Amino acid sequence: MNKKHMHNIELKDIRIKDKFFDQYIGLIENEAIPYQWEALNDKVKDAEPSCCINNFNIAAGHKEGEFHGFVFQDTDLAKWLEAVSFLIESKTNSQWSKIVEDVIKLVGATQQDDGYLNTYFTIKEPEEKWTNLRECHELYTAGHMIEAAVAHYKATGSEDFLQVVCKLADHIDDTFGLGEGKIKGYGGHQEIELALIKLYKVTDEKRYLNLSKYFIDQRGVEPFYFDIESEKRGFTKHFGASYMYERDYNQTHLPVREQSDAVGHAVRAVYMYAAMADLANLTQDKSLEEACNRLWNNIVHKKLYITGAIGSTSIGEAFTFDYDLPNDTVYAETCASIGLIFFANRMLKLELHGKYGDVIEKALYNTVLSGMGLDGKSFFYVNPLEVWPEACEKNPIKKHVKPVRQKWFGCACCPPNIARLLMGLGEYIYTVNGNTIYTHLYIGDEASIQLDEGTATIMQKSNYPWSGDIRVSVTSEEAFDKQLAFRIPGWCYDFSIKVNDKNMNCKVKEGFIFVDTPIEKETTIELVLDMPVEKIYANPQVRANAGKVAIQRGPLVYCIEEVDNGDNLSSLRLSDDTQLSWKLDDDILGGIVTISGKAYKTDDESWTEELYSNKKKVETIQTIKAVPYCTWGNRNPGEMLCWIRE
Amino acid sequence: MNKKHMHNIELKDIRIKDKFFDQYIGLIENEAIPYQWEALNDKVKDAEPSCCINNFNIAAGHKEGEFHGFVFQDTDLAKWLEAVSFLIESKTNSQWSKIVEDVIKLVGATQQDDGYLNTYFTIKEPEEKWTNLRECHELYTAGHMIEAAVAHYKATGSEDFLQVVCKLADHIDDTFGLGEGKIKGYGGHQEIELALIKLYKVTDEKRYLNLSKYFIDQRGVEPFYFDIESEKRGFTKHFGASYMYERDYNQTHLPVREQSDAVGHAVRAVYMYAAMADLANLTQDKSLEEACNRLWNNIVHKKLYITGAIGSTSIGEAFTFDYDLPNDTVYAETCASIGLIFFANRMLKLELHGKYGDVIEKALYNTVLSGMGLDGKSFFYVNPLEVWPEACEKNPIKKHVKPVRQKWFGCACCPPNIARLLMGLGEYIYTVNGNTIYTHLYIGDEASIQLDEGTATIMQKSNYPWSGDIRVSVTSEEAFDKQLAFRIPGWCYDFSIKVNDKNMNCKVKEGFIFVDTPIEKETTIELVLDMPVEKIYANPQVRANAGKVAIQRGPLVYCIEEVDNGDNLSSLRLSDDTQLSWKLDDDILGGIVTISGKAYKTDDESWTEELYSNKKKVETIQTIKAVPYCTWGNRNPGEMLCWIRE
Repeated sequence: MNKKHMHNIELKDIRIKDKFFDQYIGLIENEAIPYQWEALNDKVKDAEPSCCINNFNIAAGHKEGEFHGFVFQDTDLAKWLEAVSFLIESKTNSQWSKIVEDVIKLVGATQQDDGYLNTYFTIKEPEEKWTNLRECHELYTAGHMIEAAVAHYKATGSEDFLQVVCKLADHIDDTFGLGEGKIKGYGGHQEIELALIKLYKVTDEKRYLNLSKYFIDQRGVEPFYFDIESEKRGFTKHFGASYMYERDYNQTHLPVREQSDAVGHAVRAVYMYAAMADLANLTQDKSLEEACNRLWNNIVHKKLYITGAIGSTSIGEAFTFDYDLPNDTVYAETCASIGLIFFANRMLKLELHGKYGDVIEKALYNTVLSGMGLDGKSFFYVNPLEVWPEACEKNPIKKHVKPVRQKWFGCACCPPNIARLLMGLGEYIYTVNGNTIYTHLYIGDEASIQLDEGTATIMQKSNYPWSGDIRVSVTSEEAFDKQLAFRIPGWCYDFSIKVNDKNMNCKVKEGFIFVDTPIEKETTIELVLDMPVEKIYANPQVRANAGKVAIQRGPLVYCIEEVDNGDNLSSLRLSDDTQLSWKLDDDILGGIVTISGKAYKTDDESWTEELYSNKKKVETIQTIKAVPYCTWGNRNPGEMLCWIRE
Repeated sequence: MNKKHMHNIELKDIRIKDKFFDQYIGLIENEAIPYQWEALNDKVKDAEPSCCINNFNIAAGHKEGEFHGFVFQDTDLAKWLEAVSFLIESKTNSQWSKIVEDVIKLVGATQQDDGYLNTYFTIKEPEEKWTNLRECHELYTAGHMIEAAVAHYKATGSEDFLQVVCKLADHIDDTFGLGEGKIKGYGGHQEIELALIKLYKVTDEKRYLNLSKYFIDQRGVEPFYFDIESEKRGFTKHFGASYMYERDYNQTHLPVREQSDAVGHAVRAVYMYAAMADLANLTQDKSLEEACNRLWNNIVHKKLYITGAIGSTSIGEAFTFDYDLPNDTVYAETCASIGLIFFANRMLKLELHGKYGDVIEKALYNTVLSGMGLDGKSFFYVNPLEVWPEACEKNPIKKHVKPVRQKWFGCACCPPNIARLLMGLGEYIYTVNGNTIYTHLYIGDEASIQLDEGTATIMQKSNYPWSGDIRVSVTSEEAFDKQLAFRIPGWCYDFSIKVNDKNMNCKVKEGFIFVDTPIEKETTIELVLDMPVEKIYANPQVRANAGKVAIQRGPLVYCIEEVDNGDNLSSLRLSDDTQLSWKLDDDILGGIVTISGKAYKTDDESWTEELYSNKKKVETIQTIKAVPYCTWGNRNPGEMLCWIRE
């Protein structure tokens, strides 16, 4: 198929109208964004102060004072601005427009004459700019500012912010590269690469694309840049943790085209892979595409939690090695799953295959949604698959795992990242190729879609993810042949489809079924994805899940919580013949599908105080209730478990 | 019963003659002690240099140079001296006598006029003596020197070394205490408390007993001494790790009589509990005895690995909390199990109960023996119950777990600790009370035992731990009523006993059976402890072992290794009806009892590359072979597992 015309839908052309997601997006709009604004302005009680706006005011010369926060503190504001811009693009009369304009003025006021923009270095270490790329996140911070400005430009058409970041990007382009007198470096935390591509797309300025390509191409090339800069500045360190000085940590161990193993800091990795996929597509770079495929397969076949999470260790927030997927000491950062969605979304443009939507769906419905509480104001940074609260408190290797969502973090990358992903969700539902509309996600919406031969309006309705019954109608003013492609999820083994009330037989091809719609004004498609409760097993190489099953229904992974099932969840066991049934449970969390079934529980009472005994444990029968993983931790705190013994 | 006369046997009065232990003791004598001597003198290739003897030479003024090693480096020599002294006591014509005399002269030459003795502070920080008790181990180091000197005195009768440490102890007594102008502190790492009691016992100098009592009584009392000294020296730190500044870490969170929970650094904890038990006994201190009982019960019922190991986390080498016994991220330091043996041995003097011997046996036959390779030159510091070598290398939370024994450690506490325990093993086999000889361990030996009414000679013979058939004969010159008590191990559910070829019926009372021997010259007892293969279950609260069984036969815990069973040991499962049988296997490791049985193995071949699937795993049948845990890691390196799925 001709992929030249493949594109996403712009946010302005789609309105999400979905019972399930309206709730979450409403939380972002009504709770998270206002809450984060308060946080950026240090007005949230009992939470660590962000100092973010304060830093900008100092850097702009509006205030006296010292810089506070991380070296990358500016990105909290940038990600918030991007999320709010998405909101403005979706709902034109947003209350935030004026505030955002003022913030943009403030950001612009901190920009130096040469285009440099970063409050940490402006206030605190003006002489140390670009001297510690490994640790100091200047290019990362610039990248987030660029992404925010692109979003704002697309939302409002105003070029004010865009001009600021173009000046910043020009400065970076003047500073970095292989040319005489330029720094031959790249960022310790990838992000600028993605951002420059977005900037290229809205400005059509090829230098930005080339600069992104330079950062990708130069990475991992000998002589090793981070050693050179380290020696130059006399080996000073910013953070200094030894793992940060491993080449794997920021994927500089090899030139990117030679990489096959997903290693190091998981967010950095997937941000880079996403940029690589973008560049492979835009520059038709086969060797880059092959590296993307290898890295994708390594993650998906060997390093992906069933919840769509990645990152097996807290030390370096990193991947470890193939099949090492511990459930209780896991990192599984919310941002890493968001980055994985970015990667998958870009892989889709290299290869139209349903497997990418499968991963987007898995990460989105499980880890990303788990990242935010149902109050919109509390967040998980780490998304464990097994929690024993006492262990989180008392066993140091689990101290990064929180049994309760936190208000705001010292390093607050995740909350605004969730906000910007969910506010930009409209971009992930469809892609278009020629006259074919590919549906990747089943999220109710109305969209106006530009096809090769005309414009189509698509309406999607469902009670997804609780039900697999999906209704899609397509209309167009002009009469022309259109094709609709629907992803048949990897979890779905049976489906049926009706087109204008007529049953059709469709074969799944590369994860999709294709419906040719006749040249008519309106076509209605009823797709029924069979959504039984499934017991899922892990590859035998995953030692952590040996002898265990996970419960899944549709895209949702389920878990059991102490509040429903009592404590010591490890004492529960499903049997081979356990029948699991589901029901809509309005009493829990405003209405969710819960799953229940018969389980065996080791009887504590039958034990004495002994630690060990040759007497076989006695079991009693208990009905267990499982809830969607994404909703865990929203009631009484307690234990939680995804993988249950069988 | 009158416990006043209860005592251990002196090493000089017992000769171990045991097929099983002669091997290990021979390794200590012929390999470990010479090897450690080489190590102390920096003559071991490819191992981290100790610099220990070098430090003493510098401190004595025999050499110029700088101190190298840890602040407690002197203890490597002290523990070695203690082990060699035990060897000299057991075998009077030892080749080591002269070397030891020279070393003692060297140690004495480093002693300052006031009695102070510590090469680190003498060479490196002479002005900083006694200013950082929390971290700098001066009292701990002094304690080990005292223990070594007591052992040397008992072995040789020479007072040379004893005089050195008495001067040291006098200096400490002058320096510490509640009196005017004295330091009201105590050591960050307990050990001096135990040592002073030993010194009191050989010198009869009550000041040493009182000083030990002072250190125990003062610990955890407000105002908190470590904060006071910290402020005084301007908050400088030696190691500086934050966990070292938690009060739990060195059991200073509460006065010792109020402690109930075993917390913090495991070695420090059990060394302290051992001293507390000693003091409770010597001073008839009921509240101290009650604290010992609470702490004992907390460990044995809630914090003890089936291998007799303690310490669930590497961070702080510490206890975590009740029932938190992870198998793969465990610490389980060899020294901690040695300390637990010290504690159990002293509890025996408070209460003659078989449960203490049970724990001594468990720790000795499993963790302590596992700590040394069958070459006598390689050692485990950490004794995991589950090893996946790739994870040890690539998942940072397991980097402390080594799949292969190491030659020598930068912090080499374990190798000389194993040496001194095994060379002093003769002290743990019997205790005597009045005219009763209690047998706690089944280790072949000949001993001359002083009872109230005369001397008895006891001879023990067996093929323990491979067989439970034990033959004991007792003779005495004088005719008097003697009683023999034999521990019936907790793992033993059936036993028989013959006295002079006549079957007897005995009831187990507090873990022992009692045999009154008639007034005859020789009595022969044949005790048969039934030793079937047992499947052992863990308390349901131990989440790490839910659904799993361990294999045990007699005192030995078994494990499966990759070399016998292939990789991915987690894919193996025993079934309810798995019959396990044992046989003497001469082909492995010079002859051990191996255990085999039918298991089910998940068939990797039946899986595709997918990570997750709703297809149930296929199993194939495989015969597994298990070997004693203490022998693991002596063949080809690979995976190892104690707790197997059932």
